[in-house]
Amino acid sequence: MGCGAIGTQIALAIDSGKIPGTLTHVYDTSKDASSSLVSKLKNKPIIVENPHLLSSYPVDIVVEAASQEAVRNVAHSVLQNKRDLMIMSVGALLDESIYDILSEACEHFHKTIYLPSGAIGGLDTIKSVSDLLESVTLTTTKHPKSLKGAKFFETSKIDLEKITTQTIIFEGTAKEAVSQFPANINVAALLSLVGVGSEKTMVKIVADPNTDKNTHTIVAQGKFGKMSFNIENIPDETNPKTSKLAILSAIETLRKYCSSGISIGT
Amino acid sequence: MGCGAIGTQIALAIDSGKIPGTLTHVYDTSKDASSSLVSKLKNKPIIVENPHLLSSYPVDIVVEAASQEAVRNVAHSVLQNKRDLMIMSVGALLDESIYDILSEACEHFHKTIYLPSGAIGGLDTIKSVSDLLESVTLTTTKHPKSLKGAKFFETSKIDLEKITTQTIIFEGTAKEAVSQFPANINVAALLSLVGVGSEKTMVKIVADPNTDKNTHTIVAQGKFGKMSFNIENIPDETNPKTSKLAILSAIETLRKYCSSGISIGT
Repeated sequence: MGCGAIGTQIALAIDSGKIPGTLTHVYDTSKDASSSLVSKLKNKPIIVENPHLLSSYPVDIVVEAASQEAVRNVAHSVLQNKRDLMIMSVGALLDESIYDILSEACEHFHKTIYLPSGAIGGLDTIKSVSDLLESVTLTTTKHPKSLKGAKFFETSKIDLEKITTQTIIFEGTAKEAVSQFPANINVAALLSLVGVGSEKTMVKIVADPNTDKNTHTIVAQGKFGKMSFNIENIPDETNPKTSKLAILSAIETLRKYCSSGISIGT
Repeated sequence: MGCGAIGTQIALAIDSGKIPGTLTHVYDTSKDASSSLVSKLKNKPIIVENPHLLSSYPVDIVVEAASQEAVRNVAHSVLQNKRDLMIMSVGALLDESIYDILSEACEHFHKTIYLPSGAIGGLDTIKSVSDLLESVTLTTTKHPKSLKGAKFFETSKIDLEKITTQTIIFEGTAKEAVSQFPANINVAALLSLVGVGSEKTMVKIVADPNTDKNTHTIVAQGKFGKMSFNIENIPDETNPKTSKLAILSAIETLRKYCSSGISIGT
């Protein structure tokens, strides 16, 4: 579901055998996008006319790489049709009513929703210590041009063009960050969901005119000790708004889903 | 399989409902250890006389928390009996012939071996970028007394008692580190298996008389960018040789195995 940059790279990973599965059906709101994706593949999937049809066939899993709206509209019916689901637009789950409905549907239909680690790491460990966490902070550093257009600047006096050194642009909760900086939503959402929630997770956003990378630093403390994770992401060539790692972690999640074998990591 | 400190804490997590499963059978080479574990539980599992019996019952998964030897002796027959397996003594898998045999058995019998993240984090991410990795290094810092008794000191001239500041004790491959510092084996083994193998993973061991924690720092570089993970572990109260996190990650792995729901992280 979704034949954009991420959907295409996942489809290519299936087509090349890196993910040992079969892509049977695709959907996009744009028919051109679906056709363009299918034209790149050796093994041609069927283009369906309606996203709800994806889970009506005897598939194992539906992969959402479309939008938060697609999650809100289609996720529940996928579970109801007894298919697993992988969600890329994880921001949709920050709405607690959606999270609760989907979580209950998973239990009721004995199905699983998979959320890849995205552009961050260490979720394995934060998840393990979630009961013992006292604080979780995320610092995201980007070039000012990558922050342009965020809702935050509609009311802020900060002029991104005039920034010449590393400058803190925003400090607040993940909940605020997600509404002010929607482009940052996936990382903040994943961290909130796995840790202490979006009202207790603290986010700092830094503009750095001297970097060409997106850097995320997570610091988590609690009765287990302390951990910090720092990831400098090179933006993806085909879609500079997405980190290469976000796509790679989606491919790895599906590869693992499709494989028997030795599964490393919590 | 194994009723020591780790096995006991996993059993207690099942008994308390934190892991939504049922513990049906236990085994330990020491009958006293099995009896002592069972005495701590509300829901009493059956004590079996032989580790091979564990997988002869209609269970879903066998949990090894015993020894590398137990992995070598029992793992294959667990898969043959069509049960999944969680392995704590991951060092056993550094023997390539064992890894290959078990990996093939997983595929053949459509079963999975789970390796929890242990005392480190970020395996989710390192796994995702494994094709793009150029270097992986692990630096482990411990109090000198935690290093005592390692094979390394049989031939080294370093006197741990005389160390007064942070001192590098060892630098070499994970393969060498594992044979010289067996107490460090799980972390080095997991990192090698998930990344570039034990001959390319570099390990540094540092003695620090001013710390009461076990700190692991992983730095991985490649075409995706760069990542570093730093974890300061508080040793477990009941077994100071084990990090609290190693037990928590085992509990989280089993909790996820026993649950339908939203599964966060690659």
